[in-house]
Amino acid sequence: MKILKTIEELQEVTSSNKTKTTGFVPTMGALHDGHISLIKQARNENEVVVVSIFVNPTQFLPGEDLDAYPRRDEADKKICEMCKVDYLFMPDISTMYTEEEVLIKAPNNSYVLEGKTRPGHFDGVLQVVLKLFNLVQPTRAYFGKKDAQQLTLIQQMVKNLFLPIEIVPCEIVREKDGLALSSRNVYLDETQRKDALLISKALYSAASLVGKSELKASALKEKMQEVMQTLDVEYIAVVDRNFNEIEKIELKNSIILVVARFGNTRLLDNIWL
Amino acid sequence: MKILKTIEELQEVTSSNKTKTTGFVPTMGALHDGHISLIKQARNENEVVVVSIFVNPTQFLPGEDLDAYPRRDEADKKICEMCKVDYLFMPDISTMYTEEEVLIKAPNNSYVLEGKTRPGHFDGVLQVVLKLFNLVQPTRAYFGKKDAQQLTLIQQMVKNLFLPIEIVPCEIVREKDGLALSSRNVYLDETQRKDALLISKALYSAASLVGKSELKASALKEKMQEVMQTLDVEYIAVVDRNFNEIEKIELKNSIILVVARFGNTRLLDNIWL
Repeated sequence: MKILKTIEELQEVTSSNKTKTTGFVPTMGALHDGHISLIKQARNENEVVVVSIFVNPTQFLPGEDLDAYPRRDEADKKICEMCKVDYLFMPDISTMYTEEEVLIKAPNNSYVLEGKTRPGHFDGVLQVVLKLFNLVQPTRAYFGKKDAQQLTLIQQMVKNLFLPIEIVPCEIVREKDGLALSSRNVYLDETQRKDALLISKALYSAASLVGKSELKASALKEKMQEVMQTLDVEYIAVVDRNFNEIEKIELKNSIILVVARFGNTRLLDNIWL
Repeated sequence: MKILKTIEELQEVTSSNKTKTTGFVPTMGALHDGHISLIKQARNENEVVVVSIFVNPTQFLPGEDLDAYPRRDEADKKICEMCKVDYLFMPDISTMYTEEEVLIKAPNNSYVLEGKTRPGHFDGVLQVVLKLFNLVQPTRAYFGKKDAQQLTLIQQMVKNLFLPIEIVPCEIVREKDGLALSSRNVYLDETQRKDALLISKALYSAASLVGKSELKASALKEKMQEVMQTLDVEYIAVVDRNFNEIEKIELKNSIILVVARFGNTRLLDNIWL
């Protein structure tokens, strides 16, 4: 595995692999089994695998956890090596950004749910993903379904900007007890870790109810709220694949989303029906 | 020459020419000798030449001349054929845009001169150029120096977004009497056409003065204003290559810009020192 730090190194690799299929997994590091599942799938489906680790400052809002965000470079390198990654790109902030930048703006319809709670967050996500896409020029790029709205917006960017890239959505990986894996789970203390189980519990019970009856979204959300009544729930939402909130739940076209707060930590989870 | 109308046709061409050098000339049609000089240079320097003709609605502000903008598709096709263009891309608006779009925002330092007079104009320019770049994936793209600020911003976008494209700035082509070629020159009546000559006259006299003495920009602008005193001058500016206005004129690093109005028609001209 080669570790690349500069634009020039990466562009040379990209240029020399122009005729090969390339799988790309962009990450912010602190790799867990969720990331590993993305990397493994990329390894299975492509001749070349590129992983990036970059804690992107433009997607953090003022007051968010940019400085505290977990960094585990040495462990991450070993994980990538074990997963037979070909190239690991680990740029500095000054490598990725200049003082004045052409900016990316998420579409107007993205200012709901995460886009509403974290205005500007998705602008930063799309900006760094577009930069990385242009550098790596992957055949396929792999994203987890846990960040569902992010995944949808990246798909929209690829479509709008005519990027010749296949976005591969990957299933959420969970702990044995159901907790969705997240680099931010390390922030949880013992009690919070235990309480957090109610999120996946609420989602599972919702999914099983949807199969059985003609529940409206509002009734479903009430039942989920009951399961999570001891939690600081920020939102429960039922949306279609374009992230429009819906009342009539359609199997195969709906996503149920939960965000709950544990102290300063926001945990996201969802189920794609 | 093949005329392409759809994204799919163009993407197939791009994909099959992946190992060849491609020169790209994006235009809004109504081709004149300025465009032809870009196309000829592209033809000289590349294996494949792609020209696009698309009057891009997102770069026109409300009330501007979108509907009146000159369209001469049949003449343009013949010109491209004569210039040995390989592929002419002429998409519809609905091919290029959907209802909701991920947007491009020109950097904050671009809201001067054209960016100030036409707020949002450059956002639209960068948006369509980025879409076209992603579709064509050119080795080199050719832009005239007449739209100097546009050229500078496209170079900045390429740098910021790490696009593996060489931007080739091309000299302004003029009528024998000095008028810079522009698709908008057709709007001028006989008197306006004659008056418009004062723009290039003022620029030439400024350029010759700069060589001879240590003139400050403000003094230079006064002298130019004298030459153009009968015109409705919108601005005269002296900027460096980053479009910061300067007072001390540096040879090889300054651009002198003029915009003047003739009825509803704005004419731009400039000289790169």
